[in-house]
Amino acid sequence: MYRFTNDYSEAAHPAILQAIAETSCEGNFGYGCDEHTARAAALVREVCAAPDALVQFLVGGTQTNLLAAAAFLRPHEAIIAAQSGHVCVHETGAIEATGHKCVAMPAEDGRLTPAAIRAAVEQHPDEHMVKPRMVYISNTTEVGTVYTTAQLEEIRAVCDELDLLLYLDGARLGSALALGCTTFADLARLCDAFSIGGTKNGALFGEAMVIVNPALQKDFRYIVKQRGALLAKGWLLGVQYEKLMENGAALYLEMAAHANGMAAALREGLAAHGYRFAPESPSNQQFPVLPDALLEKLEGRFHWEVMGRADDAHTVIRLVTSWATRPEAVQAFVAALD
Amino acid sequence: MYRFTNDYSEAAHPAILQAIAETSCEGNFGYGCDEHTARAAALVREVCAAPDALVQFLVGGTQTNLLAAAAFLRPHEAIIAAQSGHVCVHETGAIEATGHKCVAMPAEDGRLTPAAIRAAVEQHPDEHMVKPRMVYISNTTEVGTVYTTAQLEEIRAVCDELDLLLYLDGARLGSALALGCTTFADLARLCDAFSIGGTKNGALFGEAMVIVNPALQKDFRYIVKQRGALLAKGWLLGVQYEKLMENGAALYLEMAAHANGMAAALREGLAAHGYRFAPESPSNQQFPVLPDALLEKLEGRFHWEVMGRADDAHTVIRLVTSWATRPEAVQAFVAALD
Amino acid sequence: MYRFTNDYSEAAHPAILQAIAETSCEGNFGYGCDEHTARAAALVREVCAAPDALVQFLVGGTQTNLLAAAAFLRPHEAIIAAQSGHVCVHETGAIEATGHKCVAMPAEDGRLTPAAIRAAVEQHPDEHMVKPRMVYISNTTEVGTVYTTAQLEEIRAVCDELDLLLYLDGARLGSALALGCTTFADLARLCDAFSIGGTKNGALFGEAMVIVNPALQKDFRYIVKQRGALLAKGWLLGVQYEKLMENGAALYLEMAAHANGMAAALREGLAAHGYRFAPESPSNQQFPVLPDALLEKLEGRFHWEVMGRADDAHTVIRLVTSWATRPEAVQAFVAALD
Amino acid sequence: MYRFTNDYSEAAHPAILQAIAETSCEGNFGYGCDEHTARAAALVREVCAAPDALVQFLVGGTQTNLLAAAAFLRPHEAIIAAQSGHVCVHETGAIEATGHKCVAMPAEDGRLTPAAIRAAVEQHPDEHMVKPRMVYISNTTEVGTVYTTAQLEEIRAVCDELDLLLYLDGARLGSALALGCTTFADLARLCDAFSIGGTKNGALFGEAMVIVNPALQKDFRYIVKQRGALLAKGWLLGVQYEKLMENGAALYLEMAAHANGMAAALREGLAAHGYRFAPESPSNQQFPVLPDALLEKLEGRFHWEVMGRADDAHTVIRLVTSWATRPEAVQAFVAALD
Repeated sequence: MYRFTNDYSEAAHPAILQAIAETSCEGNFGYGCDEHTARAAALVREVCAAPDALVQFLVGGTQTNLLAAAAFLRPHEAIIAAQSGHVCVHETGAIEATGHKCVAMPAEDGRLTPAAIRAAVEQHPDEHMVKPRMVYISNTTEVGTVYTTAQLEEIRAVCDELDLLLYLDGARLGSALALGCTTFADLARLCDAFSIGGTKNGALFGEAMVIVNPALQKDFRYIVKQRGALLAKGWLLGVQYEKLMENGAALYLEMAAHANGMAAALREGLAAHGYRFAPESPSNQQFPVLPDALLEKLEGRFHWEVMGRADDAHTVIRLVTSWATRPEAVQAFVAALD
Repeated sequence: MYRFTNDYSEAAHPAILQAIAETSCEGNFGYGCDEHTARAAALVREVCAAPDALVQFLVGGTQTNLLAAAAFLRPHEAIIAAQSGHVCVHETGAIEATGHKCVAMPAEDGRLTPAAIRAAVEQHPDEHMVKPRMVYISNTTEVGTVYTTAQLEEIRAVCDELDLLLYLDGARLGSALALGCTTFADLARLCDAFSIGGTKNGALFGEAMVIVNPALQKDFRYIVKQRGALLAKGWLLGVQYEKLMENGAALYLEMAAHANGMAAALREGLAAHGYRFAPESPSNQQFPVLPDALLEKLEGRFHWEVMGRADDAHTVIRLVTSWATRPEAVQAFVAALD
Repeated sequence: MYRFTNDYSEAAHPAILQAIAETSCEGNFGYGCDEHTARAAALVREVCAAPDALVQFLVGGTQTNLLAAAAFLRPHEAIIAAQSGHVCVHETGAIEATGHKCVAMPAEDGRLTPAAIRAAVEQHPDEHMVKPRMVYISNTTEVGTVYTTAQLEEIRAVCDELDLLLYLDGARLGSALALGCTTFADLARLCDAFSIGGTKNGALFGEAMVIVNPALQKDFRYIVKQRGALLAKGWLLGVQYEKLMENGAALYLEMAAHANGMAAALREGLAAHGYRFAPESPSNQQFPVLPDALLEKLEGRFHWEVMGRADDAHTVIRLVTSWATRPEAVQAFVAALD
Repeated sequence: MYRFTNDYSEAAHPAILQAIAETSCEGNFGYGCDEHTARAAALVREVCAAPDALVQFLVGGTQTNLLAAAAFLRPHEAIIAAQSGHVCVHETGAIEATGHKCVAMPAEDGRLTPAAIRAAVEQHPDEHMVKPRMVYISNTTEVGTVYTTAQLEEIRAVCDELDLLLYLDGARLGSALALGCTTFADLARLCDAFSIGGTKNGALFGEAMVIVNPALQKDFRYIVKQRGALLAKGWLLGVQYEKLMENGAALYLEMAAHANGMAAALREGLAAHGYRFAPESPSNQQFPVLPDALLEKLEGRFHWEVMGRADDAHTVIRLVTSWATRPEAVQAFVAALD
């Protein structure tokens, strides 16, 4: 069985597991007040060219997003997100459970546009409605597409004009960065806050929240603790992000590049067989539209997720690659298309 | 430097780390929908003699407690806890952030009494006040003391009489169990829900929430996801609890017994030198009252936490032992008392 | 200046004001524990043929809706509503501030359909999403349309099938009832809970929440108090609803019938001049599409609210009538169309 | 039956009722966007010598307090209050339902001291605990005692030193002001925000929230709407506060002075008969400690609330006077003591 189910089916890259094992009995201080965490945060600031950013390591993605809502917004302030955005759909109302509304806007291939952001603000003109205050985007998006630096600059401009915060969910940031469409430093320059996802890119678990805007930094650890997100053995996150971020995030980018490469091979194989994608994606998630008959044939040998029906005879599936995807898995899949 | 700082200064028992490494590339399903998690839950149910309990593995203790509040209570319902209870003091208002009040009651050596529970209910007679609905206790308590099965039965009786739920925070449950003062099966018989702490007893991280009362089980996973507590790589928790719970929780109890033994040696050494405790504790946390001059002498060689001043010349400190505490550390400490 | 701005521009019907003045110095008990409130609740139960309903009088409409969310739902449960529904748009995220998500569905002329309800449930299949649990409808709707008893029965059927609660916002219920499209007793038979709006139908202020489903009644007053909605001088609501509900809700229905009649006269006058409506409404809110040139002419003599642009030369406006609308106001408006 | 039950047993002073009736059909704009509300707010600012204060009229006291918590605090910030404070006990966890903890401190005769405030801050030193941020006091207090301007200045000083906000609940402010122990202008100078209670001093209902600190003013109306506290017929509040506040709050102070006078007569009568108070109060609430035999005799002719047992043979009761208390009621009570 070859799995293209997702990018969090393996525990961690061996180098990460080894680092955790090696530091196990050092006797580190708890709650992230240790030297590994301090060094990891420094590496994140360095790679982001953001010497004053607050870096907080967290365990999971929904946790990271709900902390952004809880910490950055006043009660009546809302999030603007693509209607396919993770916060709108797949977090069981985590944002609403912090008291905030998500204003879901139509998106283009999973990307929120400056026009949609502007429309969201215009649709909420007075105190009888929530006040849109924070733009949520994810890079790569939920459908595998990416925001380039140029696109992020356009979004930043509309945020500045409309007094909005920009928060970027980087659960799959590695894939976007490894494609070269943006950089750590550009994100730090353009976002008020963003996360650098580890869980889906080779870490055992972990998201690094990078808060660039000084006005959002105050007392963030209180909110982290209050929401049950302050890991007792916080150095476990520090040790991992030291490995991921050292040498200019070499391991982080290398793992993401591998995942992208595997996905590209899948995409090319599928395209060569004439299959289309819904939508096309350059990153480690591929969404081919496949004949049901083919899927029946593939079942049992490969694993994927079903996204929905395309028509009477076709289904959109999701194929995900990761740092751990082996070339022979991709070759087997492409071969099976014949 | 010998550390008695806490019981979460090491990553994990080697057997736990090894199990995680060995299963790293199995390609498990996410979010706890894997076979390790299923088997671990079955082992917990077995050791608790609670075949119908719902077992949910979680990452941290504050997270576990706030989920109990969010999932088990209606908005106007409150928690009754000892004023020294973790939920009252050391969780940054995590319970209140779910909308619920903690009614803090005076305690005896960290233990909530049936009389205090009754008083809390009597002090809240009508709809102008919150309605006490769930009793929170921890075993061992925050000051190292324990509830015996007999004491738990008394609390259960008052809960039954007053229509209260009983929730037991087992962040340090191993220590209480290894002392023989209660059993997994007694907890399952007497509590509506309780947790089995892993973080402070040899796991990399993890708390097992055991929901015995069927009325509290419905849709619990929704609440877990909503609060950002559904670990993507959920099998990491399953793999750990398999190890901890197999063979009648042999490893779990063995590690706790070691910690208790080390604490007993500290306690006896301190008592032999005439020092008293505030309060006396049979478990892996010891709270000796020591002369400031002695502490000055010990500083630099040993690490502990300061609890507070006892008088002008004495300080209450906390010494914590764990599965990883070595006998030579204890011997060195006792020797240093001379 | 003739005002068609809204139906809450006058304080109250003279009979209501008189009743408040007459009972001012009776020395009533506070918080609704008085005999007026008891009698008013009995009258509501009687008119609804719902002898076991819990009736709670409240001050405002957003307050009433947010109490339904807070009291009837568990944290992960969501409301299904028309995307034009008051809870989705015009309550500043009041529902989200109780922690719950509103799932906004496309509607037909402001009415939620059984198909849309079913779709909402189907789009939320598992614990990674909120769980739709309560259907919110308003009668009359935000755009003046109504649900007939037959339509409510269809919605009830889908609610029963999908294990959903049905809550009806009756802020403008009088208008719907006076049209004869449904009855108090049908609402009590078909809804789990509903409100009987006073504010927009001649009361000084007030909404009567009628909780028919016994499972939703427990401790409701606690939630009312907790959200700041338990009026100290609760008898003010009792006295008003006594007047509104006595003699089979005679005054309540009479005032609503007057408002409907005035609206009908407006509608007929507008239709006679060839104007269309967006949408057509039988109730006390009319939404004509009028030429901008005409509106310019009418401005200063009449007051209305603008709903939006219809095209380059036309605007949709809202004209609202009430118990206090005088025939000469309507005649003047229709005459001005010439 | 003479009632000393509370100060909200009558609807309103006749002048208030008359003003509401007279303006009933003016056709005012909704939600407080009317000229009465604007004029009333101007009068409040004038009487407070606070030209830049934001004044928001609200319906009830719990509502006012929970809005202060929701609007002024970030999620981890807590309120410091006397353990007898209304927010700690008698609001069904309304503050906690906004997500905030109340830190209850021992008080002296219902008054929070600077020392207790300092202690509360010192007991919460780090991010594992909530962060005390807003001091809540009520004037008069829940047990009838008052804060003088000098005492408020001491509290302000400790708030400034410790970076705390000061919020004063003025549900019974009239009584304190009429005693001359402080002034509107002193409150505006010393508090970040405070309320001017109408419900318990002759209004039909109403609390005026006065937000002096500009940093707390932004978007307050959004929060008001979100919590269901924006009255549709907002001018009802404006009309009342116009009457209460015109001519230097003449009617407001006159009614409170009458209530205080009636309470003084009760107090003197009771003292003359040798009864003591628990505690002594100068304001419109009196808490005599009376023999049970006497209470038995008085029952049926007078109404009061029982506060608790003083000893085996004595009970503490509460007698409350208001603008509507008649001298003959007081005389009858005092005569009955013989």
